[in-house]
Amino acid sequence: MKLNQCKIVDCTIRDGGLVNNWDFSVEFVQDLYNKLNEAGVDYMEIGYKNSPKLLKGAESAGPWRFLDDEFLREVIPHKGHTKLSALVDIGRVDENDILPRNESMLDLIRVACYIKDVDKALQLVETFHDRGYETTINIMALSNVMENELIEAFELIKESKVDVVYIVDSYGSLDYKDFIYLVEKFKTHLPNKRLGVHTHNNMQMAFSNTLIAADNGVELLDASVYGMGRAAGNCPTELLVTHLKNTKYTLRPVLEMIDKHMIKLREKEEWGYIIPYMITGTLDEHPRSAMALRATDEKDNSVDFYDKLTTPEVSFDKSGKNA
Amino acid sequence: MKLNQCKIVDCTIRDGGLVNNWDFSVEFVQDLYNKLNEAGVDYMEIGYKNSPKLLKGAESAGPWRFLDDEFLREVIPHKGHTKLSALVDIGRVDENDILPRNESMLDLIRVACYIKDVDKALQLVETFHDRGYETTINIMALSNVMENELIEAFELIKESKVDVVYIVDSYGSLDYKDFIYLVEKFKTHLPNKRLGVHTHNNMQMAFSNTLIAADNGVELLDASVYGMGRAAGNCPTELLVTHLKNTKYTLRPVLEMIDKHMIKLREKEEWGYIIPYMITGTLDEHPRSAMALRATDEKDNSVDFYDKLTTPEVSFDKSGKNA
Repeated sequence: MKLNQCKIVDCTIRDGGLVNNWDFSVEFVQDLYNKLNEAGVDYMEIGYKNSPKLLKGAESAGPWRFLDDEFLREVIPHKGHTKLSALVDIGRVDENDILPRNESMLDLIRVACYIKDVDKALQLVETFHDRGYETTINIMALSNVMENELIEAFELIKESKVDVVYIVDSYGSLDYKDFIYLVEKFKTHLPNKRLGVHTHNNMQMAFSNTLIAADNGVELLDASVYGMGRAAGNCPTELLVTHLKNTKYTLRPVLEMIDKHMIKLREKEEWGYIIPYMITGTLDEHPRSAMALRATDEKDNSVDFYDKLTTPEVSFDKSGKNA
Repeated sequence: MKLNQCKIVDCTIRDGGLVNNWDFSVEFVQDLYNKLNEAGVDYMEIGYKNSPKLLKGAESAGPWRFLDDEFLREVIPHKGHTKLSALVDIGRVDENDILPRNESMLDLIRVACYIKDVDKALQLVETFHDRGYETTINIMALSNVMENELIEAFELIKESKVDVVYIVDSYGSLDYKDFIYLVEKFKTHLPNKRLGVHTHNNMQMAFSNTLIAADNGVELLDASVYGMGRAAGNCPTELLVTHLKNTKYTLRPVLEMIDKHMIKLREKEEWGYIIPYMITGTLDEHPRSAMALRATDEKDNSVDFYDKLTTPEVSFDKSGKNA
């Protein structure tokens, strides 16, 4: 039997940190690492490797927002099968913070960028590649990208050292036909690159889109336990480990993590299929306006919210979307 | 532009009634009817048309469990575009309760059955058809049906008077490939019948599976507002009305229903993506054991639940699954 080529990248700490300002205890992160390792998950993205010097409001965030190699060594004293990953953003990472891989706990460094910054992202990728890391470039908000820009980006990517190129559905607005289209497009233009997907659950399609991408040859699949991630959250890790065929994954350790930590955490913090996030998803836009709404007393007034987003002349201060 | 052939059958009251014992106020049902009508939804399944004489525990249920034609006339004094539907179960319906269509508020009667009762279901269908109703046969638990049984059932159905044949994913265990396979199978063997789908959300695939079924020629799409339905619930009506292309549906009236009624209701009653329902889904079995678990203090102990369901020698009293 041919083994499934897929690899799961669990983003609970990194993307989930966008929900709780990375306020995860060391015990939480250790339990997660051990359970993912037991479940056979391939990568755990344990946070961001941005620099606090380059970001406002950095002081209040938990340590997973600005990973420190020495601290990581204490948190994960015994690394198992599961590799460690960190995400960096263009303009927020200080290259000098990145040790050579043989001195670091990290195996994979992923660079997130919008289409206009693919060139800058690839420069970072080259640096990290030369320091020995596996690398990915994660192109965000693809639903808002025009074909000509994408083709131009492919030209750069094709010649670069990056290992994996990610299709990111930042707004959770894409359906299975969109994913089949994008995967085909990426495969055609980047025959020498492996592919990844990162989905959001605004329209309850994060898991099904990930599954379809996997069946169409995408190799790295982002997920998070109980779907924890910004706004509508991500593809749930538990669904991938139980449903992907011909893999070595097991569900039980992920259930242990959910029982011990995630149910309680979900009572305190909010993510998932929530109507204002569904609305930004169906309108194909960033969830920031819905996140702002959810922080107010009007959080369940989805009709007014919908009216504001669909009436062109309305200015919309709270969201920062229109001045 | 070719209009989409799909028709939405909103099951909020009927399937949602399985959650709250049909405890919906008349105002709730009237608001739902008006909003579905405004949104362009084609059918509203307003309850069951079973007989209280043929069911235990009937006294405690709300009026939507045993629809009465005179009562319905008071509830919906002005029928709009949206037609009314009722579901009946084999052995629980008294044919004498069913008026001729021209004396009834109902337009569509659907007969739910397991594969072994297709013959009995078709007899009921014939009766209702002859009284003037549109009819469907809804074959439940298809994931547990062997091909030879299905082919045998097709032979009966092909020759019957039924208008629409439903593919029902009772356990929420089917993925898109299963749906593509089943739709193709039904189309091949029943070229003279229209098709319908009813999905459950145990694996977060209710909406995406419905979408794929629609794209493959299925015409009647079951859904419920905010996904309200037994256990993991159904395909959310709001996602269908906003996402189906080339239709006359509008999202805003469904949002009004959610804001006014569904958010509060969801705080009181439970349905949706909940881990024990995910477990019965992935194990391809009826959610009754998970529903029993959710009524206990152990409701979030999914590891023990999973162990019980996956250890063959364990008897499992609470659920009624094994004696």
